[in-house]
Formats: sequence, structure tokens, C-alpha cells
Amino acid sequence: MKEATARPETANETVHAFAAMQAGAALQPHEFAPRSLDPMGVEIQITHCGMCHTDLHLINNDFGFSSYPLVPGHEIVGVVSRLGEASSGLKVGQRVGVGWLAGACMVCEQCTAGHDNLCPNWQPTCVGREGGYATHIRVDSRFAFPIPDDLPSEFAAPLLCGGITVFAPLLRHAVSGNSRLGVIGIGGLGHVALQYGRALGCHVIAFSSSPTKAAEAKQFGANDFVATGQPGALSAYTSTCDFLLSTVTADLPWGEYVQVLRPGGKLCLVGVPDRELRIPAVPFIIGQKSVVSGCIGSRSEIQTMLEFSARHRIKPQIELFPMHEANRALERLRANKMRYRAVLTN
Amino acid sequence: MKEATARPETANETVHAFAAMQAGAALQPHEFAPRSLDPMGVEIQITHCGMCHTDLHLINNDFGFSSYPLVPGHEIVGVVSRLGEASSGLKVGQRVGVGWLAGACMVCEQCTAGHDNLCPNWQPTCVGREGGYATHIRVDSRFAFPIPDDLPSEFAAPLLCGGITVFAPLLRHAVSGNSRLGVIGIGGLGHVALQYGRALGCHVIAFSSSPTKAAEAKQFGANDFVATGQPGALSAYTSTCDFLLSTVTADLPWGEYVQVLRPGGKLCLVGVPDRELRIPAVPFIIGQKSVVSGCIGSRSEIQTMLEFSARHRIKPQIELFPMHEANRALERLRANKMRYRAVLTN
Repeated sequence: MKEATARPETANETVHAFAAMQAGAALQPHEFAPRSLDPMGVEIQITHCGMCHTDLHLINNDFGFSSYPLVPGHEIVGVVSRLGEASSGLKVGQRVGVGWLAGACMVCEQCTAGHDNLCPNWQPTCVGREGGYATHIRVDSRFAFPIPDDLPSEFAAPLLCGGITVFAPLLRHAVSGNSRLGVIGIGGLGHVALQYGRALGCHVIAFSSSPTKAAEAKQFGANDFVATGQPGALSAYTSTCDFLLSTVTADLPWGEYVQVLRPGGKLCLVGVPDRELRIPAVPFIIGQKSVVSGCIGSRSEIQTMLEFSARHRIKPQIELFPMHEANRALERLRANKMRYRAVLTN
Repeated sequence: MKEATARPETANETVHAFAAMQAGAALQPHEFAPRSLDPMGVEIQITHCGMCHTDLHLINNDFGFSSYPLVPGHEIVGVVSRLGEASSGLKVGQRVGVGWLAGACMVCEQCTAGHDNLCPNWQPTCVGREGGYATHIRVDSRFAFPIPDDLPSEFAAPLLCGGITVFAPLLRHAVSGNSRLGVIGIGGLGHVALQYGRALGCHVIAFSSSPTKAAEAKQFGANDFVATGQPGALSAYTSTCDFLLSTVTADLPWGEYVQVLRPGGKLCLVGVPDRELRIPAVPFIIGQKSVVSGCIGSRSEIQTMLEFSARHRIKPQIELFPMHEANRALERLRANKMRYRAVLTN
């Protein structure tokens, strides 16, 4: 028997979790038997789980594909407690993280090209399966990523969805120290994007509807702060950004942001706006501009992000809550009071 | 005195052109003294001028920046008749072409980076200056491109705006023989895009609202033809294209075309739709898709296009008209009867 598959003395045959029993409901304790451990699987004893805004959407069934009981949580850090017999590369006791995906088919065109985040048969960690607001979880071991020693678990957790969502587009589009980066929305994702921008050496401009965030935004890495609620605020920044990363879910005046882009610039959406995008065609095409998008990140991009984050001491600003206070954290998130990311701990 | 600057025996001190004297007017003969020949300038004795749909827009002042008398024409081929004293690289008697740009500042950030087509001080050939429906023209010699010997003038002319507009995005986005290319709109631009797609080795799908163009589209290079007016036509092509090049100026169901894109795919606009783009956010972002755009091409891209077009025997399907029949050609263009590009000849 492979050493790594040795079952620890305390068998995890019951998962203790927090679940919404119906759409919009407060979380309540929920116990269930874990899914069987696949040959390629890993079981993780969860120590930390970040709280992403998507968890709220899932609880509310805003996307229409939630099933109940719903155990949220897809920014998971913990310790490997069991390994499937066909898994490789991980060890029992090792600290690992899991993000939006618990698995993908690994055989389709997207997966084989390293774009597993675009797999049509992806398996989101807390859609149709129980997520990380729990004592442990079983996922495909290929989607459990070793956490660098220099990256504390409470900081690693929010990076596994929020962090990778803003990091991956910077990587894909080669945003660098020669780039003028705008970050739209300074919340759970945006405040980390500012840090990545600074670490990459960009000139960084923060765009926020909350003028009270100006000082913190500059601490995170913004060279400049634009209070977008002021009349004329955006037009004063015409042609200032090569890459505009929008982390918000609100409908914004996209035409004005197209003008904020320099010629050839890109507006990148990682937040999903709540209505269709409306882009004025003429300035967009004459300026040879683009609207691109990012959907989390691939396994390779997550590994790069973790290494980069450890090396550059990226620190999400977090509020820690014991797991059983998840509802209190959700309330703060709903009220837009979180500064900037909740992390639940076991 | 530099040989190249020698003035030919017949001085071109009067330009004979065709001009609209007011918005929407038919063209009429118009004579004027040529602008002075700049030190970097070239005078070209025009033999051919393609008729681009943008000429119609300029005649109609659809963009609001036309001035009259308006001499259209920005797909110019001719022979160098005079050279400014500071010009280099061209010779009197040489066959050259001029496209949308007669000049650019050549010192700004965009110009120095080789993106002269994005210069904020670009000088469009027939905006605020007289274009190519004329006997000759004077432009910046750096925007007059030698025509390869293997490329007949009547084919080269439509490539200088229509051709480069569809070629440059394929070059910039590395569309290749491994790409599934969709071309939306099979007209003056689209029928050339099909030829480029075939020459690049792409799998090419033509999308057209004119079912009668199916056979010709396949001759130009389409492997498949989609009559977009049929109900369900687009949904039958879900996830089939890596790169969708839209050459049309109509408002299209962009959300359906986003679904035609494969994961990570790009919709590229080179035609300017007559209303704002409306893109549904969720499938766009989940599929990590992009909307990109192309605004003609840079000098470097034009040179590459001409060389590629000569080597691959790209042949726009043209209708030849003597210059004095420009109005008749414009009527056919207005009536959407042109198959597929008019070329005026002196």
C-alpha cells in the first residue's frame, strides 16, 4: 500500500459543514457523509476558507443553478488528510489550497491545452457538490495546489479565487512595469489587484465609487485614486490606461471607460456586470481597443500566482471569523462593509 | 539636385478630380491646384482608385467631419511623378499605393512604436484633403507603398483599405492554419477576408444575410456558408469559431455571435456598427471571450499585406469603371449591388 494513501487514525466519515437549506436562507449546521474518494482524489482537512461574493450569489441562487442544501466556499486552504491511490505529487500533511474548481475532465481540448478553467465539463467546488464552509472536502488532487511556505494560510485562501481572478489576466495579457493599469472597484478583488499592479511595477490607478477608500487604495499600491462619483472624474483620465481591470458587478458607463483607455488598450472584465455591456462602436474601433474577460485561472496560472504572491508578500486585507460565525460574515459582506475579504477558520 | 526630385516634363499644376460639392451630392468635375509638395512628400499620378464604403459615408457626412468640396478615394494606386527633397526609398516612375492615411505625425508614442494607424494626429487621405478620385495626389512618401510586381494595380487598389482592414487583425491576433475563422458579411471586405483565411490555411466559415452569395463565398475560400437569415442558423454553429471577423456596419445579434465563438475566442470588429454594441456579460466572461477591433493597419502591416497578397495571388473581385463614371459606381454601391468592389481608372 502506497504510504500516501494511508488512512489517518481519525477517519473523516462525517463532514461538519454550514449550509443554506433553501435559496437566500441563513446558513445552519449540516452534516453529511463525504463523497467517495476518487483514485485521483485528495481529502483536505480545512483550516481556512475565504468568503467570495459568488458564495452570496450561490446562496441566493442568483445564477439559477444552485442546489440545496448548499455548502458554499471555494477559497479553501487546509492539510492533506487522505490521498487516492492514483494521485501523485501531494503528501499527507501537506498544506494545499483549492479554488473555484474541484476538478475538470482533463481530456478535452481546453484541458489538454492547459486551459482547464475553460473545460466545458468543469466541476465547480461548491456547485452541485459541497464546498469549503466545512471541516473537510474531497476534490481531484490535480486541483489542490501546494501553498508556498512563505504564504500564510489566511492570506492564501482569498487568493485562490479572488486573487487568481485578477492575477491571471495580468499574466495572460503581459501587463508589466511598462503598463498603466487601472483597477475598477476596490473590494475583495480590486484591493489585491492593486497589490499585484504595484508588484509588477505598473503605474496603478484605482477607480472607486467609495471616496473613503482613497487612503487604503494608495497603501495597497495605487499611484492615483479616482472617485468615480464626481462629475467629470472619468473624462479627466481620458487616455491614461493601457489595461483596465473591472472587478465590479454593477453596470458601469463603459463608454466612458473606453475613453479612459489609451489607443490599443484593453478593458478586462472579471466581475460579471448585472446587465449586458453597452459599448459605443466608433471610439472603440477607431482606437483599436478591446474588451477582454477573465474567468478565474488555469492550474498553471494558479501555481504561478501562488509563487508570485509568496515572493512579493501579497497580503489580502482580511477579517477572520470562526466558521460558526459564517452568517455574521455574510451579513457584513451583504452590507458592503467587509474590508476587504472574510476568511473563515476551523 | 537629387535625381529623384527631378520634375517631370509635364508639370501637374492642376488636379482634375471628382468632388461632392455638398453633403450627399452627386460627384462633379472639380479642378484645384495641388497642395505644395512637402520635403517628405510624393506626388502620384493616379491610375486606379478603389471605392470603399467609407467614401459613401464621407460624401454623406455621416461622421460629421466632412468638408466640401469633398474628393473621395483612399485606395489609390499610381506612379510616382515627383518626390520631395527629403524623401527616400521611392523612385520617380515606381508603382505605389496609398490607403486611408496620407500621413501621420511620426514622432508620437504610437508612431514610434510602429502603430502609426493609431496616431492621434493622423491625416486621412480624403478627410480635410483631396483624395484619389483624381488625376494625382500628394501625400507623405512614407505612406506610399511600393506595389509588388506580381500584384496588378486593379487588385492592389482595393487591398489598400479594404484588404488591410481585414488582413491586419489576422496578423495581429496570429490567426493561422490552426484557427477556425468566421467572416461576418461577404462584401467588399469580407470576400477578401475569405481569401486571406484560405491562404492562411484556416477553416473558414462565411456568415452572410445574402444566401445568394453562398457559391461565390465558397469560391473565395469559405469551407462553409451560413445564411444568417434562417431561424436557428447561428445556434447551429455554437462554439465553432476561434476568431470571428465582422465586416458589417449593421447592428447584429452580438450575443448569438458570442455563442458562435469557442472558449477563449475573439470577435473582431472592423466594420463600424451603426449603434452601440450590446454584449451579454455572463457567457462572454464564463467563456473568457473577447471583443477586439481593428482600425486599418500600420505601415508595417500594409507592407506585409502587400507581400502576402502578391505571393498568394489574392484577387479582389472587382468592377472597373472609368473615373468619370464614379457616380454610376456609387449608385451600384448604394444599392448594395457591387460584386464586390469598384475600382475607378484614369
